Amino acid sequence: MKINSPTLLVDRKKCEQNIEAMAKKATSNNCIFRPHFKTHNSAAIAKLYRDAGVSKITVSSVKMANYFASQGWNDITIAFPLNILEMDDINQLASKIKLGLLIETIEAAEFICKHLKEPVQVYLKIDTGYHRTGIWHEKNDLINTIIQFFPQCSNINFSGFITHAGHSYQATSLNEIKKIHTDTKNKLLQLKERYLCRFPDLIISVGDTPTCSIVDDFSGIDEIRPGNFVYYDAMQMQLGVCQQSQIAAVVACPVVALHRDREELVIHGGAVHLSKEALSTNGSGTNYGWVIKQTPHGWSEIDQELYVKKLSQEHGIVNVPAHLMHEFKVGDLIYIIPVHSCLTANLLGEPHFID
Amino acid sequence: MKINSPTLLVDRKKCEQNIEAMAKKATSNNCIFRPHFKTHNSAAIAKLYRDAGVSKITVSSVKMANYFASQGWNDITIAFPLNILEMDDINQLASKIKLGLLIETIEAAEFICKHLKEPVQVYLKIDTGYHRTGIWHEKNDLINTIIQFFPQCSNINFSGFITHAGHSYQATSLNEIKKIHTDTKNKLLQLKERYLCRFPDLIISVGDTPTCSIVDDFSGIDEIRPGNFVYYDAMQMQLGVCQQSQIAAVVACPVVALHRDREELVIHGGAVHLSKEALSTNGSGTNYGWVIKQTPHGWSEIDQELYVKKLSQEHGIVNVPAHLMHEFKVGDLIYIIPVHSCLTANLLGEPHFID
Repeated sequence: MKINSPTLLVDRKKCEQNIEAMAKKATSNNCIFRPHFKTHNSAAIAKLYRDAGVSKITVSSVKMANYFASQGWNDITIAFPLNILEMDDINQLASKIKLGLLIETIEAAEFICKHLKEPVQVYLKIDTGYHRTGIWHEKNDLINTIIQFFPQCSNINFSGFITHAGHSYQATSLNEIKKIHTDTKNKLLQLKERYLCRFPDLIISVGDTPTCSIVDDFSGIDEIRPGNFVYYDAMQMQLGVCQQSQIAAVVACPVVALHRDREELVIHGGAVHLSKEALSTNGSGTNYGWVIKQTPHGWSEIDQELYVKKLSQEHGIVNVPAHLMHEFKVGDLIYIIPVHSCLTANLLGEPHFID
Repeated sequence: MKINSPTLLVDRKKCEQNIEAMAKKATSNNCIFRPHFKTHNSAAIAKLYRDAGVSKITVSSVKMANYFASQGWNDITIAFPLNILEMDDINQLASKIKLGLLIETIEAAEFICKHLKEPVQVYLKIDTGYHRTGIWHEKNDLINTIIQFFPQCSNINFSGFITHAGHSYQATSLNEIKKIHTDTKNKLLQLKERYLCRFPDLIISVGDTPTCSIVDDFSGIDEIRPGNFVYYDAMQMQLGVCQQSQIAAVVACPVVALHRDREELVIHGGAVHLSKEALSTNGSGTNYGWVIKQTPHGWSEIDQELYVKKLSQEHGIVNVPAHLMHEFKVGDLIYIIPVHSCLTANLLGEPHFID
């Protein structure tokens, strides 16, 4: 394929290795591996997972669940608080596949009890420290009240406690990430022990890429749902969660102008391709992605002075120190390691594989 | 239409009024009105422009030019530095429509001289202070060198000088925006005077929404290319460029959870719907969009305490002070005024009109 505009390139082998490593970790810990497909939202990447033996998946919206159901996936958890306005779509989906839903409010529990027409798996979303969604793990009364609804509804299979320890993205060390994992596990295990007698099949499910990548011992955990690890990105690398060699996705961008006096390149590659997610850089300027080059031996190593410093809708401005400017010319393709590969993949659609 | 997931809603009447006001300003100043279609990238909004008598348009990529050419638009300027890798597509487009291209490097000028197979309009992109793209207006030698190429190529109609005074988005007062306009105009007029004898049809073209909205006197300017004004947004309102009553686009988002103790709502509406563009808030927290409500008399006024404070891929976290919490419930739709409507519209596709 001749690349002439911003294009998501994926190294198939790295992708397969990332999938294999995580699948192996799940297997050796006797965990269900239910990877999050929001990262790629791609039929081609889904096939790599299928080839690796994956059959259960996580998505973040009803729309995405419909898409993957249409691709033949028939065991899908929508890891997003139930949106009661989508009840009709949910009933339709549940008539076709094994569907998992997340509940975190009494209102949603009452609503679903009344309106479900098909059996679904229902998980209680628990907040273990991220404070985005979920019921705070210590709110025993609320947790109890909601769980008491479930047996009244024959279509609800209460299936367990689910969390996303997204605060691991703010960790400042690998030890902190490990501590977050242990803390998360302990909080969910307490809940599991309390309800296991009444619901002997309930599971606990965790999901973020930082802890799933760093931790090897998942004893006690029943299911893992990481997603980002399939591509990884600059943010995970900054966290220390992956090496550059594991990053599987880059964005090819054409160079359209050199501004030597400003020590900048202009590329076709803007906010509608990369997203405006930026690395936190401790005041040393905004970084919307590392710039690497193709060499005869693969990608070049990251150079701290080569990065996307400004983004508008279609333009990217790349910082290039004077002594490196001679390495670039108009009409070149350069390659950006995205800051947050999930948002970049959402903008660029199906990837093009490079082997 | 029953709305049950994040959806771009556009007030058709406000859109028409915004278009009419800008078209009128162009007419009364005897300017060509060539609106930028990157803001909406929509067939439905394009039709409103067509109905208002617009026939010349601006886009920001070859892909977008192809899309609107396929919709019957036949006079299109691609306001992005020529990407020489797309020469084949450009020749194809130029065989079908009147195509305008922007040049800012010798490399691109040489390349286009060699490879153009069809006549095109070529503009020199000039930097008048934004420092994103374009040749700095005082670089007379470079400007001269490039312009000297053009008569050697029979397919190039050198058509003038074009700029985007995007530094108007950083202005701290309306007076500063006006000064930017005057300064931009003077810089382009100097260039025009220098080359008018050799190229008697050349024009000068300016484009940003802040100056085009605030300035009434466009004497001396031959063409205006604003885009954002068709929707406006929170950023333009913060600049003082529009009133809330002029903002035509909002994003409807379902409420999926209330967290009273955190004084927060969770909505379905995340970075893949709103984009991660944030308002600059002088340290008072990040704002990814104002939250308004539907009332019997239209939209509610902006409340400084109601805004999207955090975004992840699909989740939005809305700041709601305790005393307003009773106004919301699970299953409500709330409405977000996007920070940057161009990026939001790019994510959400064709809008749904509300009348």
